[in-house]
Amino acid sequence: MGEHDKAKRGIPPKEDFSSWYASIVEIGDLVDKRYPIKGMDVWRPYGWKAMKLIDGITHSEMERTNHEEVNFPLLIPEDLLDKENKLVAKLKAAREAGVDPSEMRFDEEVEGFKKEVYWVKNAGENELDVPMFLRPTSETAMYTIFPLWIRSHTDLPLKTYQIVNTFRYETKQTRSFIRVREIHFFEAHTAHVDEECASAQIKEDLEIVNNIMSDLCLPVIISKRPVWDTFPGAWYTIAIDVIMPNGRTLQVASCHHYRDQWAEAFGMTYEDAGGIKKNCHQTTYGMSERLLGAVVGTHGDDNGLIFPPKIAPIQVVIMPVAAHKNEDVMNTVNMVSETLRNHGLRTHIDARKIRPGQKFYDWEIKGVPLRLEIGPRDIDNGTAFAARRTGGKSPISIADIVSEVNNELSEIAAELSERCNNTYSKMVQKLNSMDDQIDDSIVYEIAFDGSDSDAEILEKNTGLTILGDDILPYDEPQKCIITGKMTTRKQHIGKMY
Amino acid sequence: MGEHDKAKRGIPPKEDFSSWYASIVEIGDLVDKRYPIKGMDVWRPYGWKAMKLIDGITHSEMERTNHEEVNFPLLIPEDLLDKENKLVAKLKAAREAGVDPSEMRFDEEVEGFKKEVYWVKNAGENELDVPMFLRPTSETAMYTIFPLWIRSHTDLPLKTYQIVNTFRYETKQTRSFIRVREIHFFEAHTAHVDEECASAQIKEDLEIVNNIMSDLCLPVIISKRPVWDTFPGAWYTIAIDVIMPNGRTLQVASCHHYRDQWAEAFGMTYEDAGGIKKNCHQTTYGMSERLLGAVVGTHGDDNGLIFPPKIAPIQVVIMPVAAHKNEDVMNTVNMVSETLRNHGLRTHIDARKIRPGQKFYDWEIKGVPLRLEIGPRDIDNGTAFAARRTGGKSPISIADIVSEVNNELSEIAAELSERCNNTYSKMVQKLNSMDDQIDDSIVYEIAFDGSDSDAEILEKNTGLTILGDDILPYDEPQKCIITGKMTTRKQHIGKMY
Repeated sequence: MGEHDKAKRGIPPKEDFSSWYASIVEIGDLVDKRYPIKGMDVWRPYGWKAMKLIDGITHSEMERTNHEEVNFPLLIPEDLLDKENKLVAKLKAAREAGVDPSEMRFDEEVEGFKKEVYWVKNAGENELDVPMFLRPTSETAMYTIFPLWIRSHTDLPLKTYQIVNTFRYETKQTRSFIRVREIHFFEAHTAHVDEECASAQIKEDLEIVNNIMSDLCLPVIISKRPVWDTFPGAWYTIAIDVIMPNGRTLQVASCHHYRDQWAEAFGMTYEDAGGIKKNCHQTTYGMSERLLGAVVGTHGDDNGLIFPPKIAPIQVVIMPVAAHKNEDVMNTVNMVSETLRNHGLRTHIDARKIRPGQKFYDWEIKGVPLRLEIGPRDIDNGTAFAARRTGGKSPISIADIVSEVNNELSEIAAELSERCNNTYSKMVQKLNSMDDQIDDSIVYEIAFDGSDSDAEILEKNTGLTILGDDILPYDEPQKCIITGKMTTRKQHIGKMY
Repeated sequence: MGEHDKAKRGIPPKEDFSSWYASIVEIGDLVDKRYPIKGMDVWRPYGWKAMKLIDGITHSEMERTNHEEVNFPLLIPEDLLDKENKLVAKLKAAREAGVDPSEMRFDEEVEGFKKEVYWVKNAGENELDVPMFLRPTSETAMYTIFPLWIRSHTDLPLKTYQIVNTFRYETKQTRSFIRVREIHFFEAHTAHVDEECASAQIKEDLEIVNNIMSDLCLPVIISKRPVWDTFPGAWYTIAIDVIMPNGRTLQVASCHHYRDQWAEAFGMTYEDAGGIKKNCHQTTYGMSERLLGAVVGTHGDDNGLIFPPKIAPIQVVIMPVAAHKNEDVMNTVNMVSETLRNHGLRTHIDARKIRPGQKFYDWEIKGVPLRLEIGPRDIDNGTAFAARRTGGKSPISIADIVSEVNNELSEIAAELSERCNNTYSKMVQKLNSMDDQIDDSIVYEIAFDGSDSDAEILEKNTGLTILGDDILPYDEPQKCIITGKMTTRKQHIGKMY
């Protein structure tokens, strides 16, 4: 395939990441950006299939961990915010009493949130008595109903989730999957008897994140966000970031421990075994199509997408070679496809009458992990010729096609993970001194144990953002980059999406 | 179980259908109606699971028939309606030229439709330049994009579908699943080279309907709606109605043949093999959670829900009996559950320490098709005691548990279908003369071949609504109930939801 053909498809080199990403989501048939609302793309079948496969992993994990799927209305009446306003009042009082600073930002946030929602104030020819907004997330809707579902400690833990469309009136530049106005959103909401049980939930969430990210072949940085980046009304937020090829970090998931702050505001109480009324402790856990954005951005190359096998809409494309010369070719191709499908693999037969080079190129763009070619000579040898999207070609036995293909796919996944780990080891560098030159395509690891004003200095001087405390601190104390004090707190700073 | 306990649960007798239905959707844990927007219920896990199982059947049918799943934005800018307005203009011109009367209602309908949508005119603190509405259905959104996807006859047929939330500002009384304001909607949209191919699609749609309805154990009436009940802009509409126990018909699905009317308005053209530009011919096919409403309303009884096995969230509930006396009991219960699950069956073990009668009653309400009891004596006999929700009890062999349970479930499904067929044969009666007494809990079959004004007389005199021409006409001509002319046109009239 010559450069000429590549240029014809219009894929910019991946080095120019921003242009490459913007192009490949359309050239790879994931979305159509021509819908006339900024930040609201049309999901094409290929892209939607990939997203649903990611959702499928999430559903399995939710089922494994006994979360139940619910579905709440999209529209939220404005007056339900009254309870959140009470929460604001409570937190204001707390602030005056000088408690946990994480609670201080909530009132501003509720105001900020109102600036980010779409409003429904009219229906038909009527103006509505109570304006409604499109959910940006479902705390308000759910916590209005949960108190009706929770009476006693036997109703706990309540572990629910939903995968729904949420909306945010983004004023920043939109990017497919990364910053959109209609969000394909996963949100788990749980209620527990006490803080400890809620903390155990956060631990389980991180195990789920780990399983999902492993299927997506994506290494992550897991950080407890600084107080000023904690979700409004949360005790703490743990965020999961992926590093994109341009060095910018992309938050793909987050878990929040609410303690009993929201429960207090919404009257979410239960009777314990002794008949005493207590507040629930709550957590949430959110993800979105950013997962797909991270997959696209991380694994793709100059020739197009590369899908991790677990979420590839087509895992194996099978191409008949010289089928006109030998009718066994199509029979074998069909048999191989059928056998693989019967074992749960997603196959596609490309029998188009165009030159093979063109076919290779098409499936390369679409990131199909494995290509099988079967021609008369292969049949004579009892093999299919397997070409990996990650590079490398070899004949594999048709008699053992299922185990051979599964083996190929596992190796492709391992290769993708290894590539990422190698890239991360270059993109994440230890910063030992503020005098070092800062490169904003690098994510720096630092020992940092400074105050809020130290953090402000750090961010200002580097032009980067603190991701927060890595959940795995240093084994041995290191010198804090600002204060010089010894600390085991490992943090990262980088340029965030 | 005494009447006292039943009364405690508050299930009205099914004879009082309207109260029974309104109660059972909540008592059966399908939805919570306490969300503070009329017509927008919260889907509880049990109800949502049932709906997703119905969706699963739909997805399988779509995959079998090579439809591809897409996902379009919820919000539609008002100015996209310009093209529909052009369609209105075209149809007006057609009306003046005296063509097909089905086209005449479109302009009124577009106006009517604007009265039924929710408007988004504000986002954050801004008033939007172009108001947007929440999709009531996706023609406008999709047909704005489809012309970009269709160039040549090789792009056809285009067969797409989506399952999404749609919205309608209902002013009529809302009822869970039956008339709601946020609709869980399935919509298939196809484009074809000509009218004949589009007609073949309608035929395929009806085959899909047939498969789905068979899994739901629901007989249906399939009618070509009268011209005045044809979807706006459609050539004809075929609607699928279920008869609810109160004799009212519930439209659960509909298929529309658009010919090239919408394509003309939206510029949806293709080049045929000879390079000639032609309009596409289109069809749509819609369904919603009304399918679940029909299941709930039709199959349930005084004791609660009855789920057809194919969509039962729990197909088999397994109850240990006297487990404290013999540890083999729980082992066997677990083994049986595990074995059934490994064969794709949905099981639940109820090991609560409450009296068995209470357990029976709980699962009866929830409509679990099969209950297995396993106690020490059963284990000695190598059997489990099987009780069908539809009545009948017998021991089944634990050694053959998978085939035995599958057999029980098949018989339960057959029993549900048979019950419905029996009920329908009583609820659908031939009306031979306008002098006969009309009972509005009956759906009447009539031979009818009258004019529009005859139809008006018929509807006025009976107080019923014409469903339209049964797709299976009479074999032998019958006397039209109004005109007395001989006709094979079989129609139904009844009270519609």
